[in-house]
Amino acid sequence: MKPLMPRPSLHWLLLLTAGSILAAAPETLPFPADYREWVFLSSGLGMTYGPLASAPSKPSFDNVFVKPAAYREFLASGKWPEGTMFVLEVRGSSSEGSINKAGSFQSQALVGVEAEVKSGGQWNFYGFGTEQKPGKLFARDASCYACHSTNGAVDNTFVQFYPTLLPIAKAKGTYNSAK
Amino acid sequence: MKPLMPRPSLHWLLLLTAGSILAAAPETLPFPADYREWVFLSSGLGMTYGPLASAPSKPSFDNVFVKPAAYREFLASGKWPEGTMFVLEVRGSSSEGSINKAGSFQSQALVGVEAEVKSGGQWNFYGFGTEQKPGKLFARDASCYACHSTNGAVDNTFVQFYPTLLPIAKAKGTYNSAK
Repeated sequence: MKPLMPRPSLHWLLLLTAGSILAAAPETLPFPADYREWVFLSSGLGMTYGPLASAPSKPSFDNVFVKPAAYREFLASGKWPEGTMFVLEVRGSSSEGSINKAGSFQSQALVGVEAEVKSGGQWNFYGFGTEQKPGKLFARDASCYACHSTNGAVDNTFVQFYPTLLPIAKAKGTYNSAK
Repeated sequence: MKPLMPRPSLHWLLLLTAGSILAAAPETLPFPADYREWVFLSSGLGMTYGPLASAPSKPSFDNVFVKPAAYREFLASGKWPEGTMFVLEVRGSSSEGSINKAGSFQSQALVGVEAEVKSGGQWNFYGFGTEQKPGKLFARDASCYACHSTNGAVDNTFVQFYPTLLPIAKAKGTYNSAK
């Protein structure tokens, strides 16, 4: 007769043990008021995989910033140190304005701000919405965790989309070209 | 009988006098190797008025950076101080790569780098091309001078396209809404 609950395998026991060692992530994160003075990594328009991906008819810009100390460590080692923090800022786009007649420029319309923080050896994700208030931790089953873990070319981060960091990671041997 | 050469008007004499008072701009400018650590102002895609404007079929991204000290002065006063320096970095775009299937992200293909510097009370423009070598001063009749002077919403700069600085300039009374 089969047990109602399957016995935990060694694999699961190891995972549970590892999970209990990791510090619990703080439920909130102060709003990083100076993030626009951090190091800019890249900007995309209408990218399709983001958490706030926009409809093709009205694409948004994604601006990515990282804390300066983490950036400098990455230049030196190709790795993200403890305390690394990214901000993803999503903004609306405009096409016609002033002397510009086509293409797209960034508008004042803020769509949302999110953060990714490396803390206690794990990566945590927070959402701020459009207000400069403390951000809320995304639940572990939110898509950001699995997507970054599965598809980030360097340690849960999308270095494949950061043109100045991609060659650094390749030179330092931390780049996963299969992503 | 009309003279072959028109007599200089008072207007021209004043302009010539003003020109001789302004310090001559240096013919070259060292490459600002750390500009990617400066403050990012905005990014556009396929904008139509830039010096390296791209064909609509293959649009480029324009990334604009400014020196941190000038940025902080602008936050305080809405004005650009002596020594302000902007860098315009133009990069190619890609649409499909890694998990991204549409929209545009910035590629490693550098199209060109240019700078605008406020020095001796005037703005000077330099081109670096794609190499990290000293930039060359653009001649006074290059289109950048007249375009920035005529169309820049704040002191020869396109603050109308910088979403976080636009409201600062309006609040400080330095924004020209007619641009």
